[in-house]
Amino acid sequence: MSDTLPLLVGGSIAIDNVKTPTDEATNLLGGSASYASLAASYFTDPVHLVGVVGSDYPPEHLAMLERHGVNLGGVDRSDGASFTWSGEYHQNMNDRTTHNVAVNVLQNWQVGLSSELAASPVVVLANMAPANQLEMLAQCTAPGRFVLADTMDLWIEIARKELEEVLAGIDLLVINETEAREYTGSTNLVTAGNLLRAKGPEYVVIKLGEFGAILFAPPECNHGLFRCGAFPLSEVADPTGAGDTFLGAMAGYLASLGTTDYRFEQIRDAVVRGTVMASFTCEAFSTRRIEELSELELLERLEIFREMSCW
Amino acid sequence: MSDTLPLLVGGSIAIDNVKTPTDEATNLLGGSASYASLAASYFTDPVHLVGVVGSDYPPEHLAMLERHGVNLGGVDRSDGASFTWSGEYHQNMNDRTTHNVAVNVLQNWQVGLSSELAASPVVVLANMAPANQLEMLAQCTAPGRFVLADTMDLWIEIARKELEEVLAGIDLLVINETEAREYTGSTNLVTAGNLLRAKGPEYVVIKLGEFGAILFAPPECNHGLFRCGAFPLSEVADPTGAGDTFLGAMAGYLASLGTTDYRFEQIRDAVVRGTVMASFTCEAFSTRRIEELSELELLERLEIFREMSCW
Repeated sequence: MSDTLPLLVGGSIAIDNVKTPTDEATNLLGGSASYASLAASYFTDPVHLVGVVGSDYPPEHLAMLERHGVNLGGVDRSDGASFTWSGEYHQNMNDRTTHNVAVNVLQNWQVGLSSELAASPVVVLANMAPANQLEMLAQCTAPGRFVLADTMDLWIEIARKELEEVLAGIDLLVINETEAREYTGSTNLVTAGNLLRAKGPEYVVIKLGEFGAILFAPPECNHGLFRCGAFPLSEVADPTGAGDTFLGAMAGYLASLGTTDYRFEQIRDAVVRGTVMASFTCEAFSTRRIEELSELELLERLEIFREMSCW
Repeated sequence: MSDTLPLLVGGSIAIDNVKTPTDEATNLLGGSASYASLAASYFTDPVHLVGVVGSDYPPEHLAMLERHGVNLGGVDRSDGASFTWSGEYHQNMNDRTTHNVAVNVLQNWQVGLSSELAASPVVVLANMAPANQLEMLAQCTAPGRFVLADTMDLWIEIARKELEEVLAGIDLLVINETEAREYTGSTNLVTAGNLLRAKGPEYVVIKLGEFGAILFAPPECNHGLFRCGAFPLSEVADPTGAGDTFLGAMAGYLASLGTTDYRFEQIRDAVVRGTVMASFTCEAFSTRRIEELSELELLERLEIFREMSCW
């Protein structure tokens, strides 16, 4: 992978406690940046993780990330308790209830990038407070860098102004369906995608969960659209982190191309890889399935997905 | 089109009154078989329509179907009032409220096929009472015929036994997402599709509305699946009849192939054509958009859809 570019992934690193209709588990590796960096590690090298953990953070989670080549030099260690999320999925595995969010060490965290990390040519602002995303963005120094970002409903509600600033400074936004409708006030997804593009990012991906994703691009590229399905799964064990995995795999694939000046087809191919990688995440709690993924399994599923989707 | 096979389409022929958040119209051409036969007429010839209308039925609707080559010899004329549906779409254009259904002449209608129509090699049992679907099925005589059917939530609730008999006698079922989940009791769509296949039909298509459709096939064909998106529309004027259009276009395309012994790829290509034809239906009230469709528009959208969906 001598041509691959360094990738910087900033976001939350959490402890998750997850309950599903058939199972439950505690003290899991969670957080947007954890999933994204692990997923990216299948495509590019190095992957630099930026975030904060408390003194209670399970060392085995960080060790697992390191085994996958994720560089932890940018992970701050704080004296407080780690960011923790506890939630429960309902019977359909789409709706979930958050039982508890303990922000803890994230509360007062500030992004401080080393000059090496600040020079990363591909940057992921995984889901975190827009204020932190802006902090990180302001420290990035690489000319012609490509920046991908995600967000969530909470920030649309309480930090819309900062979020608008984030959008103005990035190249690709990933957002889920209900958030896109909420943010733009449009029930039509095509309209919503184009409204989001008008706020700054050249590319917008609206995630549809089990129904896939839509990539919005400049109108002169492929009619401005790519419609990607989701890889069909007969069992979903835990969808937590699927969206973060999607984002990380997209970014990792793009960084692996050795450029930051992407053609539409390369962004499209990144969406496909994000989709397939996210399908593995859904097959087990936390990152358990993607921790053990082989390159062959990934390539095989990519080919099956192409056969299932193209004609 | 000398190689095309005759297609028989049985189902409801209705008068629709439709209200949307921005517009409304009354006395429209409606009914499952109306949409399906018109859509099929773009692909195959002859298309035989079977159904019943009352003495109040607007003659211009029937004249329009005839202009498109739909053969009305199998349409019964009754003294009563026509089947009428009145409904209203909500802001998101997905949810709708039915204000009134007047079954009228459909109440006591019985299917009676001429020997010519009974010998049709491709048959569509569009949405109607399973008892009528069974009546029609029992009269079909062509050896090796290919039968496609649709249904709706009402029949799953009040006529499940007859519906099971229908499923045992058909080759391809089209059903929407919520109905598939309700019928099978499975929230997982892959599982639901396979459970429906186990009831008889070799192929099952689960329609996902704006999110496309999933084709379920024997496991040895393309991993048992084809995942088709929907053609993205920035405005949906009236989705009524989109599913019926989908079914009719599928059947018309299959009949146009001059055989009833289809390869998986042909069923897949039929799903693509159904999807694209249904997108036109959504662009105006009733059949107004597909009435005026040119072959060139259809071919162009098919190509754009391929570019938007494949990689």
